[in-house]
Amino acid sequence: MLPHLGSRGNPSSLHAAGAAAHEAIEEARESVAALIGAASGEIVFTGGGTEADNLAVLGLTLAHATEEKRHVVVSAVEHAAVREAALHLETSGYELDVLDVDETGLVNPEELAATLREDTALAAIVWANNEVGTVQPVKELAEVCAERGVPFHTDAVQAAGRLPIDVGDVAASTLAISSHKVYGPQGVGALYVRDGVELEPVVFGGGQEKGLRSGTQDVAGIVGFGEAARLAKEELAERREHEERLRDALISGTTGIPGVRLNGHPDERLPNNVHLFVEGVEAESLVLFLDAQGYEVGSGSACSSGGHKASPVLLAMGQGEREAFSAVRITVGKENTQREIEGFLQTFKGAIEQLRQLSPLYAN
Amino acid sequence: MLPHLGSRGNPSSLHAAGAAAHEAIEEARESVAALIGAASGEIVFTGGGTEADNLAVLGLTLAHATEEKRHVVVSAVEHAAVREAALHLETSGYELDVLDVDETGLVNPEELAATLREDTALAAIVWANNEVGTVQPVKELAEVCAERGVPFHTDAVQAAGRLPIDVGDVAASTLAISSHKVYGPQGVGALYVRDGVELEPVVFGGGQEKGLRSGTQDVAGIVGFGEAARLAKEELAERREHEERLRDALISGTTGIPGVRLNGHPDERLPNNVHLFVEGVEAESLVLFLDAQGYEVGSGSACSSGGHKASPVLLAMGQGEREAFSAVRITVGKENTQREIEGFLQTFKGAIEQLRQLSPLYAN
Repeated sequence: MLPHLGSRGNPSSLHAAGAAAHEAIEEARESVAALIGAASGEIVFTGGGTEADNLAVLGLTLAHATEEKRHVVVSAVEHAAVREAALHLETSGYELDVLDVDETGLVNPEELAATLREDTALAAIVWANNEVGTVQPVKELAEVCAERGVPFHTDAVQAAGRLPIDVGDVAASTLAISSHKVYGPQGVGALYVRDGVELEPVVFGGGQEKGLRSGTQDVAGIVGFGEAARLAKEELAERREHEERLRDALISGTTGIPGVRLNGHPDERLPNNVHLFVEGVEAESLVLFLDAQGYEVGSGSACSSGGHKASPVLLAMGQGEREAFSAVRITVGKENTQREIEGFLQTFKGAIEQLRQLSPLYAN
Repeated sequence: MLPHLGSRGNPSSLHAAGAAAHEAIEEARESVAALIGAASGEIVFTGGGTEADNLAVLGLTLAHATEEKRHVVVSAVEHAAVREAALHLETSGYELDVLDVDETGLVNPEELAATLREDTALAAIVWANNEVGTVQPVKELAEVCAERGVPFHTDAVQAAGRLPIDVGDVAASTLAISSHKVYGPQGVGALYVRDGVELEPVVFGGGQEKGLRSGTQDVAGIVGFGEAARLAKEELAERREHEERLRDALISGTTGIPGVRLNGHPDERLPNNVHLFVEGVEAESLVLFLDAQGYEVGSGSACSSGGHKASPVLLAMGQGEREAFSAVRITVGKENTQREIEGFLQTFKGAIEQLRQLSPLYAN
């Protein structure tokens, strides 16, 4: 990225610096496309995963809706980017159906089939949920939509680089990914748009990215994203195995503690995700306590923090408000070690003991 | 920027890395605000100048339009970001008036006053045009709108860091700037939103940036933007004087060549901009020729390149298609030297001579 941070060539310019920037972007586009089995011409770079989701949800709907076709379907466990874009469509006069999930967070393909209508302009279901880590049967879900001719978007921001993704195998119209979730820089994302799929832009201007995302591209960011995608593809199996080993050690170490329970699906879950209900402990206190010990864990979703609202994802899975406020998310990455997990588990147990002693909610 | 490229802390997270990222963003927000005389709470970071313009044009209109109030006014010399967003509003059922400019590219405040109506939801006029460099009487234009209670947006992407900007002195509701135009990284921009001004978001999600631009922030990019803004403020007078000196040397050196004419306003122009009509020369050939000699100049607007359409800005200034295709833009920056200008002028004269000899359009 560093040479591009220094040069700032405009990829739309005619001259040499512009051409070099353009070439660097196209190379990155190849790498990002390869990560998900796409052709490079099907990749649109955006300002992040949220923007990619918005372009898909709003753009597919606007391109496919008509006066008679104003029905939109999303699952109850979408990332805020898809959920809020869908709610915006609802306030703009579209009819929105939110698909229920079971207590593990799974969407049922038969329920999706029953919800689709003649006038459905879009269905959007997340590949893997960002909070509880549940991985959807996205191939079946996409197939249901394809059979009915309904455009299908999937937010694969959490799944990319962690699970194999092949758009040749999953009949999605669009698929969103984010650079910083595959160890690339922040502020860059991409939307896969299947060849032939119609989409309306959300941001207008100079017509970059085939008119779907106007604005001078962030060349350095895109180059970083490309390299991160290349490494993610190369190391996918290795990273996955490593993360799953650490995740499973975390799950068995934490769920052995009384009053600690795993949320989400036991098997169909992201390799890096452990999501726990910790009885008698306020998640925010636990996060701050662990942070002081050098461990960063999440409470609720970082993307919608700041607010004191219970996670809609946990509520959709049938949990109560109180449980939602006692939920923490522990994620591991390629750089974590087995030794760190052992140290963490000790600290975690100690933290829970101490916090429960302070808690009026927990009968010690 | 470098530590933040490495750490990728999520500014919305509770833990220490999140807090450090949050703090770095807030420091950058102060610097960006200071560059334009704003309070830091009035700055919304976006994924670039185009996105900032879109958020203003679409967001102000959606927030202020009603069933009876669907009139929008923009100038004929807007950047594509504002122009295309306004055209999108027109296709969505709004009534769009495009304000004419004189042959120097200036908008007349009296014409603006005459165009505003009871049902005008937005007026948008660029501070300084990105192609011909004409600087608008933005203070008067904003005043006209303020007196009539019409929200006023100005795209100050070209002006920021080159001309003094003080939102205390110019009654704009919103003002867009871009990081890479003040020597910061690409992929970051900001929208100034005057305290109390209502705006609808364009991108939906986690509610970052007061809900006006959802999506995890590009911390490194924003930090780079902040530092660039700090330097731009500190060195504004010095840079401006330096650029004006080089610009004036370029203008006198080029307009001395037969058949070369300055476009735009002789005085009310950006300190770094020289825009020329070069009779008998195709701009693209000239750009490529100069590029081969190590000089990067622009043809048309880089942001809308790729297409072979005459610049709408030049057409609005009363120039013909043929003149538009023979127009080049030469810009200087803080790192250029007087010596470079001398070398450039020699090369430029030689290029024109050679290209004119090849041209069927020019009577040698």
